[in-house]
Amino acid sequence: MDKLKQQMDFLLEIDKEKKIGRQTYIADGSRKENDAEHAWHMAMFALILQEYAGEAVDIGRVLSMILIHDVVEIDAGDTYAYDEDAKKTQKEREEKAAERIFGMLPELQRDHFLSLWHEFEEGTSADAKYAVALDRLQPMMLNAAAGGKSWKEHGVTLSQILVRNHETAKNTEALWEYSFNEFVKPHVEKGNIKG
Amino acid sequence: MDKLKQQMDFLLEIDKEKKIGRQTYIADGSRKENDAEHAWHMAMFALILQEYAGEAVDIGRVLSMILIHDVVEIDAGDTYAYDEDAKKTQKEREEKAAERIFGMLPELQRDHFLSLWHEFEEGTSADAKYAVALDRLQPMMLNAAAGGKSWKEHGVTLSQILVRNHETAKNTEALWEYSFNEFVKPHVEKGNIKG
Repeated sequence: MDKLKQQMDFLLEIDKEKKIGRQTYIADGSRKENDAEHAWHMAMFALILQEYAGEAVDIGRVLSMILIHDVVEIDAGDTYAYDEDAKKTQKEREEKAAERIFGMLPELQRDHFLSLWHEFEEGTSADAKYAVALDRLQPMMLNAAAGGKSWKEHGVTLSQILVRNHETAKNTEALWEYSFNEFVKPHVEKGNIKG
Repeated sequence: MDKLKQQMDFLLEIDKEKKIGRQTYIADGSRKENDAEHAWHMAMFALILQEYAGEAVDIGRVLSMILIHDVVEIDAGDTYAYDEDAKKTQKEREEKAAERIFGMLPELQRDHFLSLWHEFEEGTSADAKYAVALDRLQPMMLNAAAGGKSWKEHGVTLSQILVRNHETAKNTEALWEYSFNEFVKPHVEKGNIKG
């Protein structure tokens, strides 16, 4: 029963992810989304868009990776994609969080999820490249739907978006092309993204 | 590009799941959770508790099933587990919703997800039995953590809980035993669940 208790305690602890706010608004612009909602939505992207992954992926591994990718933010907080100062300490804060939170699990599971999280962070395996691309794509869709509000609030520039999506553009070309034309371009034209 | 547009439109439509409220409070009792958060949390339960599934399961299928299981509530709303009146029309409302929402997808995906959703609703395959058990377990953990508030608010009785978890108790015995002892029993003793 000790093992099951560790697992249940972990599952209760990660409930806190529902309180970690992101900078992205939900599609109707009424409020910002949280990490749990983001992870669910991203997992749905993974299910629906699998055929556009650059290489063959193992969907079970991709879903696992996506579901756990923001657990560390329970301790480390959400680091905004274009906040260069916060990004300097992000790696260290998140490593510590991963050790504590995944460390609540029985040893084999702890090692498994730590390694899966590192794989996502490195972003070099086929599964991780696809997952990372969706982590870029999902907020672009929402920012566009919510009238570009989040881009405007943060004074985001087109070149910041291009740098951030450089890998995605190579790995999941059709998705990037669609996003650029449907989500990014109209908001450059409207001035919500600085040209 | 038409196919990809259908898929992207579906992914935008289901963002609405973040606005479908449930009767369960998040663990700290500060607010109720929504369907998107619930689906993410349940998917995490599936990942962590796989060894307790009564029969061998395909975790990729289980995760898919869980991620989509409440999409129908975008149109049909959340039907509270112990609301017997609302449950009379639930099936019809949800079938109509499934046709419309999964119907936004390209044909093959529409058929795939409709069939997966029906499999969850029927709850007879090994994958569905495990997923349904987690749909019962996750709110029990949260209700207990939040001080039994949701049970009290709805005047839930122990026999209602026992009926609702009858199948779970058979299929995932260790999980039910833990839940009963750790989540249910203390709240019967405190009077938050009517004996």
